[in-house]
Amino acid sequence: MKILVLGGDGYLGWPTAMYLSNKGHEVAVSDNFVRRQYDYELGAESLVPIASLQQRVKTWKTITGKSMPIYVGDLTHADFVYEMIGNFHPDAIVHFGEQRSAPYSMIDREHAVYTQVNNVVGNLNVLYAMADLDPNIHLVKLGSMGEYGTPNIDIEEGFIEINHNGRKDVLPFPKQPGSFYHLSKVHDSHNIQFACRNFGLRSTDLNQGVVYGVETEETVLHPDLATRLDYDSVFGTVLNRFCIEAVLGHPITVYGQGTQIRGLLDIRDTVRCIEIAVENPPAAKEYRVFNQFTEEFSIKQLAELVANTWPGGARVELVDNPRTEALAHYYNAKHTKLVELGLVPHLLSDTLIESLFRVIEEHKDRVNWDMIRPMVNWRKTHNPSHA
Amino acid sequence: MKILVLGGDGYLGWPTAMYLSNKGHEVAVSDNFVRRQYDYELGAESLVPIASLQQRVKTWKTITGKSMPIYVGDLTHADFVYEMIGNFHPDAIVHFGEQRSAPYSMIDREHAVYTQVNNVVGNLNVLYAMADLDPNIHLVKLGSMGEYGTPNIDIEEGFIEINHNGRKDVLPFPKQPGSFYHLSKVHDSHNIQFACRNFGLRSTDLNQGVVYGVETEETVLHPDLATRLDYDSVFGTVLNRFCIEAVLGHPITVYGQGTQIRGLLDIRDTVRCIEIAVENPPAAKEYRVFNQFTEEFSIKQLAELVANTWPGGARVELVDNPRTEALAHYYNAKHTKLVELGLVPHLLSDTLIESLFRVIEEHKDRVNWDMIRPMVNWRKTHNPSHA
Repeated sequence: MKILVLGGDGYLGWPTAMYLSNKGHEVAVSDNFVRRQYDYELGAESLVPIASLQQRVKTWKTITGKSMPIYVGDLTHADFVYEMIGNFHPDAIVHFGEQRSAPYSMIDREHAVYTQVNNVVGNLNVLYAMADLDPNIHLVKLGSMGEYGTPNIDIEEGFIEINHNGRKDVLPFPKQPGSFYHLSKVHDSHNIQFACRNFGLRSTDLNQGVVYGVETEETVLHPDLATRLDYDSVFGTVLNRFCIEAVLGHPITVYGQGTQIRGLLDIRDTVRCIEIAVENPPAAKEYRVFNQFTEEFSIKQLAELVANTWPGGARVELVDNPRTEALAHYYNAKHTKLVELGLVPHLLSDTLIESLFRVIEEHKDRVNWDMIRPMVNWRKTHNPSHA
Repeated sequence: MKILVLGGDGYLGWPTAMYLSNKGHEVAVSDNFVRRQYDYELGAESLVPIASLQQRVKTWKTITGKSMPIYVGDLTHADFVYEMIGNFHPDAIVHFGEQRSAPYSMIDREHAVYTQVNNVVGNLNVLYAMADLDPNIHLVKLGSMGEYGTPNIDIEEGFIEINHNGRKDVLPFPKQPGSFYHLSKVHDSHNIQFACRNFGLRSTDLNQGVVYGVETEETVLHPDLATRLDYDSVFGTVLNRFCIEAVLGHPITVYGQGTQIRGLLDIRDTVRCIEIAVENPPAAKEYRVFNQFTEEFSIKQLAELVANTWPGGARVELVDNPRTEALAHYYNAKHTKLVELGLVPHLLSDTLIESLFRVIEEHKDRVNWDMIRPMVNWRKTHNPSHA
């Protein structure tokens, strides 16, 4: 199958591109490198050194013999999107190409507007290019479990049957996202759903949980093939950040009481979920939603797991929660559709955490301590250290 | 009360500004005149001649003695929004300042992207300016009944109690909008709801039905105070357009079988609903939704009502539906909250239609016949006559 990975230079885009290429698909990658630009803006960088996309693709070719064309450009530029899709003519488009940090979107007005315009317009351009050039292309779009918020009922996969005043219907699951970033994903979901109905497109919307880990079968083949590992308070995700804090002898910083519950998954499951979605396309006009995570944990459980696994133990420190979110809340989100299609999850284990510890120790002299404490407060409209 | 009307030069913004001014409020209006620019683009114009905003305000001052400051600028320019709100310091902001035509948003990719960026960014700028300058300002935001689509259950006012697997919660009513314009309003609604929760803002989201009529107590005071009456297939709304077709001796053009059901309201109720919302503000952090319409009709019922009221009768013609929408569908939308707060609806009657006929006859030599037939097809990605 011909697969175009948008955002193919990112934390998950790059491992996904290699994984699909390794499985025999013909893969192309696209990026505008704005993720690397955010690092300059924030004074942060990946703990694991990463090669340029050009070098990554060259090393991949040397090791596997497989080519991977690169399209450099910005999805908000329609001409670029049309040219790329017309030129590569993919069977499936895997869309990781969005600004993906909630804290980044909450820095100030400018970052909120940037996040929504960048994500919504890029996605609209992809939808129009598909409608114009080939409505049969399957769009596999990365969404977020954070789109749902924390309702007091079970979270279904995208749709819920509602019984009301003696009548019933299956309707989109109500969304209560908690940042301008998560809102951009909700906007995308609504736009995609309409585009499927109106233009006859087909799409899979993957509401992904928090991803942890940094190694896949492909990233370990050569240092040039490594993917980024972020630990800064803006782009670092929770479990990765906790492991880095433990290795550095820094207290493990939990926001609030740590009673927030989140769905998580191993990076090796992310790449497999994408493969499953791509190889089992929906029907024409179909818009379907999979919840892409494998286990639920409270933030405190994760902190304690990391603290107990690190030799000698680590201290857990509760810090003021910079986010606006429910603390003690009900959480039960369904995630059976990917399993039904063949996903065999890698469950979070000591082994995984120990392998993360190993990678972190190897690079711990690269750490910038200033980047760990939360610097974006949700309730402030300006966060000058990031403005 | 000090009230800032955004989009104060438009079909409903201008009558609302005068109505609130007449009721003793201190009113300012803002506009970027892009609605007049759309007319040049489409080769269309209001059937009723309209004065410039500067002339309207001058005549309003001459007749009533009341001043109405004008702020000329674009809501997507944050500096303008901050300066205006800081300078006028309103108690309430009535936000009509968005691109409001579904067909316009469906012309092509460029118009879809323009509509969503214009509406979403303008609204985000208003939210941030409120959070920064005065979170107590009450945002009265115009949404659309079209945000809901046509679910097979009763439509509630913004929120619905859902019972699911033995648990329950009150959640945002699921939305299934039918154009990129309606989607932009759904995006706005999600953004506003989050901003209320996160920044402690207060807002009323008015999901308005289709407005008909052109005369209020204020617009009839002087020809300079008239508001626009659109009959073109892009900006003309259904009942107004049917009346114009009848007067011109043109068949009344119904899309599809006309079995689509819509909520409608009289322009005199629009201005009163805004007054009710403004004078009964929600609590701090509260996001509330009112469904703003007074009666439900099928499109065919409306066509027949107009045909039967026009002396001598008129012919109803079914034309291919250019939209993607459910034809035969259940429709029962709640609309009690504004009535509970004092709205006494003007129900659609022969009298109203006859007064519309009178206004139209007065200006019928201004009609451009080319503008009546639908020219934007939802399922096409290019509509060259409008590109």
